[in-house]
Amino acid sequence: MDTLTRLEATIAQRRKADPDTSYVAQLTQRGLPVMARKLGEEAVETCIAALAGSREELVGEAADVLFHLMVLLAEKDVPLADVMTELDRREGVSGIDEKNSRSE
Amino acid sequence: MDTLTRLEATIAQRRKADPDTSYVAQLTQRGLPVMARKLGEEAVETCIAALAGSREELVGEAADVLFHLMVLLAEKDVPLADVMTELDRREGVSGIDEKNSRSE
Amino acid sequence: MDTLTRLEATIAQRRKADPDTSYVAQLTQRGLPVMARKLGEEAVETCIAALAGSREELVGEAADVLFHLMVLLAEKDVPLADVMTELDRREGVSGIDEKNSRSE
Amino acid sequence: MDTLTRLEATIAQRRKADPDTSYVAQLTQRGLPVMARKLGEEAVETCIAALAGSREELVGEAADVLFHLMVLLAEKDVPLADVMTELDRREGVSGIDEKNSRSE
Repeated sequence: MDTLTRLEATIAQRRKADPDTSYVAQLTQRGLPVMARKLGEEAVETCIAALAGSREELVGEAADVLFHLMVLLAEKDVPLADVMTELDRREGVSGIDEKNSRSE
Repeated sequence: MDTLTRLEATIAQRRKADPDTSYVAQLTQRGLPVMARKLGEEAVETCIAALAGSREELVGEAADVLFHLMVLLAEKDVPLADVMTELDRREGVSGIDEKNSRSE
Repeated sequence: MDTLTRLEATIAQRRKADPDTSYVAQLTQRGLPVMARKLGEEAVETCIAALAGSREELVGEAADVLFHLMVLLAEKDVPLADVMTELDRREGVSGIDEKNSRSE
Repeated sequence: MDTLTRLEATIAQRRKADPDTSYVAQLTQRGLPVMARKLGEEAVETCIAALAGSREELVGEAADVLFHLMVLLAEKDVPLADVMTELDRREGVSGIDEKNSRSE
């Protein structure tokens, strides 16, 4: 099983854990706005790491983005598979560059 | 082959394509700061979609985050596998909740 | 009258203008989530400009942040004076460094 | 003297203070990438507060955005007056809605 699929299962399980011992349960208790904030903050940190940080920092921040994105998707009951299907669809229908036709 | 692995290969290939026909090549031509900006902007849009948008918008924005994160990693020569290894390491060493011990 | 005070009055006036000819009216029509998104995006662009752009770009992006922050405050009926009072309070009560005592 | 002008003077002074007692000095010691990160994070928090928080939270986050924007401008030797001049110029030359003509 790949990393993200396993992570998704772990997050689903830990959402019901004790907030005192689980970061996922803590975020779940604090709610959607805090989850959204964490995703935004980690993305900012990834930008900064890409421009001014070490390779190790970039890897760590990218992992944080993926982790918090998955926590957010779990809160909204969106399976990761739906996001993957959307990525596949874009590639299938019109090439990876579908975005090219969108206004920036 | 899973979606992200295939996407990573596609991005690597399209980086050398014609910027007039490929969004990935266009981003590559514009360079790292624009890639970082796109990631940050898509993450902001994901936050907003999670709080105030439809499920469909959230799926689309989450796909945009993953796509632009991978474009950024490619520019910095960081294989997606390194990020997955970091996620695995966190789970292996100390549980998904390693972050719990970090200051927020 | 200083720039931000005048800008605040202009924004209040243009909120009721025709969206076809006024950007402020257009944002007002599109609503709070779009305003919040614009602020977040301009802040990301300011980060990138500070790290990788010219002085002129930084000035332009900083102006965009101030402008969109004020559009957002207007939408939420928060006078700029309230934000200034908060900045004054922090300095008065405990010095500019009040934040020092907050966890990061 | 208005709040931001006074704040600008205070920041300039505190940049040379002891990082153990001054948050501004601490940020100055940590450097530009951390300042940029703080601005980005506070902007994300402002977005979230506008969509899902109280009026008081929004005022506090907006103050944080202004404060960290000014710390960043100070680090880059950009006087706040330059940003105000840019805002005035936009309004003078083409109305507040100059941005209207820009692609989003």
